[in-house]
Amino acid sequence: MKSINQTLPESALFATTFIKAWTLQVKRINELLERIDDNDLLKEIAPGRNSGVYLLGHLTAINDAMLPLLGFGKKRYPELESFFISTPDKSGFSYPSVEELKEYWNDVNEKLNQHFSQLPVEEWLTKHEAVSAEDFAKEPHRNKLNVLISRTTHLSYHLGQLILLGGKD
Amino acid sequence: MKSINQTLPESALFATTFIKAWTLQVKRINELLERIDDNDLLKEIAPGRNSGVYLLGHLTAINDAMLPLLGFGKKRYPELESFFISTPDKSGFSYPSVEELKEYWNDVNEKLNQHFSQLPVEEWLTKHEAVSAEDFAKEPHRNKLNVLISRTTHLSYHLGQLILLGGKD
Repeated sequence: MKSINQTLPESALFATTFIKAWTLQVKRINELLERIDDNDLLKEIAPGRNSGVYLLGHLTAINDAMLPLLGFGKKRYPELESFFISTPDKSGFSYPSVEELKEYWNDVNEKLNQHFSQLPVEEWLTKHEAVSAEDFAKEPHRNKLNVLISRTTHLSYHLGQLILLGGKD
Repeated sequence: MKSINQTLPESALFATTFIKAWTLQVKRINELLERIDDNDLLKEIAPGRNSGVYLLGHLTAINDAMLPLLGFGKKRYPELESFFISTPDKSGFSYPSVEELKEYWNDVNEKLNQHFSQLPVEEWLTKHEAVSAEDFAKEPHRNKLNVLISRTTHLSYHLGQLILLGGKD
């Protein structure tokens, strides 16, 4: 029997490696969400800073926006943008409940995972939807992979903040 | 003239994309370090949490450890491990000054960048130094690329915390 190393072409191994990196960040956030109370999410991560619920909404909205950006379809929760992307926390909106936001968060990530696992490897290097064909010819790194990597570091950035609500580090 | 898309093989484009992701995180941390005072780094990111100077030392020590892990050579500042990896903040050590730590931080990153830019693309998929050849045959994602991606998210995680010392978000 061949080892995976021999059967997987090089590009597929690239793809596996960075999809795993994404999955790991989502998993760490999920573990944190299971560990802390919903009430902890209503607190600020540090005095005068974003609340946990804002960050959960923000991460959900940004991940949701990956669906159209990667050509996977429409946003599932377009209403989140005005609450959690266009405006800062404490802008006077009534946010969805933590329970609802968690449901959206899981739904969006499940949808993304389905698309990630089905995307042919070479497609990761094709342009994302926010760059023109002309610009892409000059800047080929503005590809779908780049979106995935930048959204992976985005998850990690805010995980580093959410952890302050109830975790070590 | 051919576009970069045609002249760069697919794997090289993968490599360019994730090295850029690394470089971006280092750049963002450097921008933050330029924006805030050295004295701000002595503060805690949130009440009772890690100080900025500990996080700067921690990031430097973890990046330094990438040199041997990726087969690039020895650590340049092995003494940092006991201060900033093996023990938590406020363990009673006298830390190097912020000025010294910034010097180490820049030096380590410069060294890494030199190696990254010279590493042949296919090498990114070879095993890192902390996995045996036997295990690697079964788990080919435990490669150098995986180290780079996980350290990129590590930078981002702590940048999300350092920003609390003096930045928006």
